[in-house]
Amino acid sequence: MSQYVNTDQIKFLLHEVHDVEDVLKLPRYADFDNEAIDILVDSAEDFADKELYPYFQEIDQFGVKYENGEIIVHPRVGELMKLSGENGFIGSHFDYEDGGTQTPHMALTALGVIMSSADNTVLSYTGLTTGAASLIKSFGDREQFNRFVPNMMAGKWQGTMCLTEPQAGSSLSDIKTTATLQENGSYKIEGQKIFITGGEHNQVENIVHLLLARIEGAPLGTKGISLFIVPKHRIKEDGSLEYNDVFCAGEFIKMGQRGASTTHLVFGENQNCSGYLVGDANKGLKYMFQMMNGARLDVGVTALSIANAAYHKSLQYAKERPQGRRLANSGAKDVNKGQVTIIEHPDVRRMLLLQRAVVDGSISLALESAKYLDISHHSPDEKERMAAHNLLEILTPITKTYPSEMGQISVSNGLQVFGGYGFTCDFPLEQYHRDIRITALYEGTTGIQSMDLLGRKVTMNNGAAMFALAAEVQKSIVSAQTYHDLKPYAQILAEKQKVMQEVLGKLMSFAMAGDYERFLSDATIFMEFMSTIVIGWQWIKMATSAKEALVTSNMTYGADFYKNQVHTMKFFFKYEMPKTLGLAETLMNDEVLTIKKMEEEVFA
Amino acid sequence: MSQYVNTDQIKFLLHEVHDVEDVLKLPRYADFDNEAIDILVDSAEDFADKELYPYFQEIDQFGVKYENGEIIVHPRVGELMKLSGENGFIGSHFDYEDGGTQTPHMALTALGVIMSSADNTVLSYTGLTTGAASLIKSFGDREQFNRFVPNMMAGKWQGTMCLTEPQAGSSLSDIKTTATLQENGSYKIEGQKIFITGGEHNQVENIVHLLLARIEGAPLGTKGISLFIVPKHRIKEDGSLEYNDVFCAGEFIKMGQRGASTTHLVFGENQNCSGYLVGDANKGLKYMFQMMNGARLDVGVTALSIANAAYHKSLQYAKERPQGRRLANSGAKDVNKGQVTIIEHPDVRRMLLLQRAVVDGSISLALESAKYLDISHHSPDEKERMAAHNLLEILTPITKTYPSEMGQISVSNGLQVFGGYGFTCDFPLEQYHRDIRITALYEGTTGIQSMDLLGRKVTMNNGAAMFALAAEVQKSIVSAQTYHDLKPYAQILAEKQKVMQEVLGKLMSFAMAGDYERFLSDATIFMEFMSTIVIGWQWIKMATSAKEALVTSNMTYGADFYKNQVHTMKFFFKYEMPKTLGLAETLMNDEVLTIKKMEEEVFA
Repeated sequence: MSQYVNTDQIKFLLHEVHDVEDVLKLPRYADFDNEAIDILVDSAEDFADKELYPYFQEIDQFGVKYENGEIIVHPRVGELMKLSGENGFIGSHFDYEDGGTQTPHMALTALGVIMSSADNTVLSYTGLTTGAASLIKSFGDREQFNRFVPNMMAGKWQGTMCLTEPQAGSSLSDIKTTATLQENGSYKIEGQKIFITGGEHNQVENIVHLLLARIEGAPLGTKGISLFIVPKHRIKEDGSLEYNDVFCAGEFIKMGQRGASTTHLVFGENQNCSGYLVGDANKGLKYMFQMMNGARLDVGVTALSIANAAYHKSLQYAKERPQGRRLANSGAKDVNKGQVTIIEHPDVRRMLLLQRAVVDGSISLALESAKYLDISHHSPDEKERMAAHNLLEILTPITKTYPSEMGQISVSNGLQVFGGYGFTCDFPLEQYHRDIRITALYEGTTGIQSMDLLGRKVTMNNGAAMFALAAEVQKSIVSAQTYHDLKPYAQILAEKQKVMQEVLGKLMSFAMAGDYERFLSDATIFMEFMSTIVIGWQWIKMATSAKEALVTSNMTYGADFYKNQVHTMKFFFKYEMPKTLGLAETLMNDEVLTIKKMEEEVFA
Repeated sequence: MSQYVNTDQIKFLLHEVHDVEDVLKLPRYADFDNEAIDILVDSAEDFADKELYPYFQEIDQFGVKYENGEIIVHPRVGELMKLSGENGFIGSHFDYEDGGTQTPHMALTALGVIMSSADNTVLSYTGLTTGAASLIKSFGDREQFNRFVPNMMAGKWQGTMCLTEPQAGSSLSDIKTTATLQENGSYKIEGQKIFITGGEHNQVENIVHLLLARIEGAPLGTKGISLFIVPKHRIKEDGSLEYNDVFCAGEFIKMGQRGASTTHLVFGENQNCSGYLVGDANKGLKYMFQMMNGARLDVGVTALSIANAAYHKSLQYAKERPQGRRLANSGAKDVNKGQVTIIEHPDVRRMLLLQRAVVDGSISLALESAKYLDISHHSPDEKERMAAHNLLEILTPITKTYPSEMGQISVSNGLQVFGGYGFTCDFPLEQYHRDIRITALYEGTTGIQSMDLLGRKVTMNNGAAMFALAAEVQKSIVSAQTYHDLKPYAQILAEKQKVMQEVLGKLMSFAMAGDYERFLSDATIFMEFMSTIVIGWQWIKMATSAKEALVTSNMTYGADFYKNQVHTMKFFFKYEMPKTLGLAETLMNDEVLTIKKMEEEVFA
């Protein structure tokens, strides 16, 4: 077993909890069966062990260097891009005819967990290339696809997404980068973008930016944004490359993920930057949301993978480190006896179980979302596609945010298991602690995700997504009730569902009354509330599948493995689920304390 | 106003909430009046502005370098040691006759907040020197005092505390460093110590270690530990220095507080290390606890100061950064209007108020504890001393832990206010985020503090401390009830007190039944539960004092200042206090999930 991941857990989730077979039945995935999925998982672990994990700390220490417009990253980035290209990891969900392997998203998510647990940073280079290539595939024309995508899939060219501008931040309405039609049909691009991951580096021949800009005269706000392909180097008629006036003005040095370059780019400083419109004008944000939605799921995977690695590292340490003694019934410690390993201390066990509850709960949710992604794209049945789409929409902000937020707590508990050593650079926990902090920021902060969840997803199609989710949860409650000892927990989940309805009733009343600011003012609290219940649901599912295996003795991994699923579910319901009590009280509280009033000077 | 602290808040807490006058009435502090305290506060801010804050980031970037037994730290460390010596900051609580200024601990705590907010790292060098000098003063003899303390108070010699050993960690029973009586009356010291802050560096002439070791033949466990002074250089008859065989074998590179050296020391590798027994043999741990208790309060101040600086930095950013628009009643955003500064967004206001609630609540508690420290040491009335001692004992672990744990959340919210910029090294938030993580680890982890709180402090003297605290809280409830609009919050606090009694009744039943492991297994959860209520109490006190000022129009700082105290109290009661609901449910839950049983393999 690797030091950073337990693939048995992932296989259990794929096959026994989330029935990957449902997805493998889809015509698109006809070439995959359960065994093929397991082979993929095993080979991903092998790849991660050999190609990723050994460089994880080194790449962090190397960092990223900026010198006169050039960005120097660890050479491993280039090697990994090429390896990923050779192994078909970039664009592996593409059609066979486009050079892909039509791999299901459920499998890709599992592989993402394994590989990101080994190294959460370096995969951003390949992941963004995949995302950018997908955008071109979905909304670009065939000529654009042929011009850019094959080199991206080969790992020779880097892909990026360029949204954020210095003056706008998350407020995409305020993007100012301009695009002006030129005689040859391309657009002259001028503007600045910041926080562009992989926006420049010395390990690829070219960089293909998928960039949001405004065509002159376009409507104000998000309805006037178009999507462009803007390569660092243009491709000339003869196939050779020509500099396209994309200048890297600086690198943001960061607390974590130090191996990922995060650039400030200036487009068209010398009026010589060409961009190619993707799809229709003014539809750029809609297109980009495909990439952003995928990226949000990916960030969730990144976050839970960091927490996963931290969990396994702290578990290993707790099993090896001797310190202190268990409390005897007298309350005294017998100093004549030797020390025990710290895994015997209840507080350490609590910290380990908390991590497992957060991490495996998050992996389970990520796979659930990936399943809906597969079905929503590839089911032959339209109704099924729509239902899966709704579920994916409502779960996406949670799948991104729960691991980003609770993953931080989880990693911090892992660090705490190491005591003072956790704070030193002798162990990787401090790196995990630094790395994971970004996940609540990029691809939409927690605040943005929470407004998306409550303001858009809960209310979309007259609450269709919310109803669909409630129906899924209800199914899981009924299944759990088959087993006598799971009944009390299923009952708690049912009660929490009811409380959620009450809370939503209260919040919706503000929206109905037209007070949207009030409606969304505690969206982040609602996110914490709802996501805790959603992860409780995942644990009920895991415990039910585990119980089934125990009762039928149809066990792939040994009785302890299954008992531990039930144990961790119980832990979640004792230590995490009760948080919803306080969160609900906050949400139902009528005092208005965070909305600015004209007369008040709360921050005088 | 400084960029990292609001001294009005500190003066309000000193004079209006915690009545520093009560302390100034004590005979020892006859030379101090309210005005003198304010002058101290102002001059501390001035000192921090000029001498600390400008070097804060530079010292972090410089880090600590280890070269063949030598430790190189930023030269500012030496300058600061000398400046602190010249200004009488080291040992300022000492008697006049010992070179001190008899400054009250309440004032010293206020100064600590101001200075640590400017730079939380560099003060560990002077703080530890103060602690070590105090130990010698309290338990050493006059000759030892004269030999070591004057040079420490002058900032020429560094002081340290040497407890932790590699094989023992927090388990002090397992200390192995030995002390063997020599012919000249000193002891030969042999052993290793780790995590020794300031244990070696190039900015002082000598380093005076206060070290725990076992005299040959001493009883096993903590009852056989003695305290020694072990200088890096011995002082010869003629006053010159001679190397005392204290070798620095390494430096721990850390995630944060990178400017503080954290050393691995080897004592007596060449059988030539002499130590001098402090006080009686085998009483070392008792003596050391004086220093540790002081150090625990100091760590609380460090933690809350980091969070305080983060709060003020994020507040400033939120007032300056334009982004997005407020939600109109239609739910739409009017893109024709310019962007607003982010302080207008409810979620940003929530993050700012959360920080203020945590930070100012923590400062208030730190001053409350400091007041009890002053009274317990210097009241002429024995009963009053004893009462204050009990209160100090029960509040110490909370004063250390609440800011260490909730301070992390607070800083993280500050970082989040900056969006992606918070993760970059362009702003100090990432440093605060790295720095504060250590506070839940050193001077006793949160787990250790929690066992101390529940296992020792709650039960000490038949619950005397707990009863004394309940009586104090009750007094505050009665005062708050004077004001109609504070009544509901006072009522909530009273209810929480009752729930705490119920929870304790439940937990104590395990202790009564002799099941100490069960009794303490959720001590950390109890800590979170109780400390939330204690901070709620502090907010009731602050709101009551503020209300009094508003009602009587006896206002030093303007009406907004006082209204904001009440506002933040309400915020705490809406957003933080409800957490106790879930924590109580967890504590009252009968499932046993974190205690190792013989047959189970939860971590198979």
